Amino acid sequence: MGRVICVGLGPGDPDLMSLRAYRLISSARQVAFFRKAGRAGQARQIVEGMLCDDVHELAMEYPVTTEIPVSDPEYNRLLAAFYDDWAARLADLAQAEDVVVLCEGDPFFYGSFMHLQSRLEGRAEVEIVPGITGMSGCWTASGQPITWGDDVLTVLAATLPEDDLTRRAADTDALVVMKIGRNLPKLRRALKRAGRLSDAWLVERGTMPGQSVRRLEEVEGPVPYFSIALVHGQGRRP
Amino acid sequence: MGRVICVGLGPGDPDLMSLRAYRLISSARQVAFFRKAGRAGQARQIVEGMLCDDVHELAMEYPVTTEIPVSDPEYNRLLAAFYDDWAARLADLAQAEDVVVLCEGDPFFYGSFMHLQSRLEGRAEVEIVPGITGMSGCWTASGQPITWGDDVLTVLAATLPEDDLTRRAADTDALVVMKIGRNLPKLRRALKRAGRLSDAWLVERGTMPGQSVRRLEEVEGPVPYFSIALVHGQGRRP
Repeated sequence: MGRVICVGLGPGDPDLMSLRAYRLISSARQVAFFRKAGRAGQARQIVEGMLCDDVHELAMEYPVTTEIPVSDPEYNRLLAAFYDDWAARLADLAQAEDVVVLCEGDPFFYGSFMHLQSRLEGRAEVEIVPGITGMSGCWTASGQPITWGDDVLTVLAATLPEDDLTRRAADTDALVVMKIGRNLPKLRRALKRAGRLSDAWLVERGTMPGQSVRRLEEVEGPVPYFSIALVHGQGRRP
Repeated sequence: MGRVICVGLGPGDPDLMSLRAYRLISSARQVAFFRKAGRAGQARQIVEGMLCDDVHELAMEYPVTTEIPVSDPEYNRLLAAFYDDWAARLADLAQAEDVVVLCEGDPFFYGSFMHLQSRLEGRAEVEIVPGITGMSGCWTASGQPITWGDDVLTVLAATLPEDDLTRRAADTDALVVMKIGRNLPKLRRALKRAGRLSDAWLVERGTMPGQSVRRLEEVEGPVPYFSIALVHGQGRRP
């Protein structure tokens, strides 16, 4: 069996990828990455200038991202077929030489590769290289520690119902909210109801050019899907 | 003002530190790190063989770790004096040249450096380089993604009261528990009461030599303080 190596790229700054990730990426002859159709792809952009000259690039373009709600059975059907197809293609390619799959952040933390991994079982050897998560990049950008002492940290997706967001935001010391995008008004209402709005920060493009760190209550209008909201813990500090 | 640069080393495998961390560490002439008195220090061990020949090493030895309960005012007094002292020394050293402070994992995620950072304000310029967290190293070692789709992730310290651990373990999709050590029997009871014990894994020395991944219910006897327990989320998977 050949090897498929999924490499975490970290939060966006190419300097923040691991030594192991850099070595694998810069020597790979087969490099695959996910992207939205018609876009350059964030993962591919992070490795710009690092790939070897004779690399074979494989752009795995999602058949759907936000055009259909995830609750629609058609969404599930399209994505399942997409992952089936690419798992078969990567397993084939890996027979000849290692295939490196690029993954923003850390592959096992809300990554897309996991859907390929389960389908590669028995067809290719899979290795995962962890990366610095996007949330680590964002709380570093905020200039304040996210957790101290025995703080409880909760990580939520802003796609959850408002009541869930409210209850969980009220019941934690530190909070990270991902997948914001068009869910920002709902998230803002939930944080206000939970009494956490005035302590919440919004980080966009953490560790990348154009990085922005603002108080969430001051943010108007649309924000990127990959923005992250933070409420820092206030735990024990001698 | 000189610069104090706190560099996240990642989960333990030196190959998993970032390119930026590696460059800063291998060129630094002043390197400081925390350790328990009488020990080599985990952070220092990770960089073994990377430091330059004329490096000046500063071992910052905790005056107390587990000898006094954290609830004892004396614990707080000793640690506050220790951080005061080292902040003053690092600020002085930084006047002449950059000081690199080593930090396991990610500095802003339960790190000790934050206690220096607050004391360095106005005395030295501080820069933080994020790292791969210990928990990322551990869930990668477990071979399974920690979160899928809209999973809620909760991160807890096993030092919390048993009832808190139980309630929170029952009320999350994915769970990470840190600071286990002598709290293992309490954690095991809490996971059992929460109905999560049979899905819990214990990872010791994740990404390092001697790495071990076991079902938590099968673990007997003492485990290191820096062991991590995991319950993987089971969210949406097309």
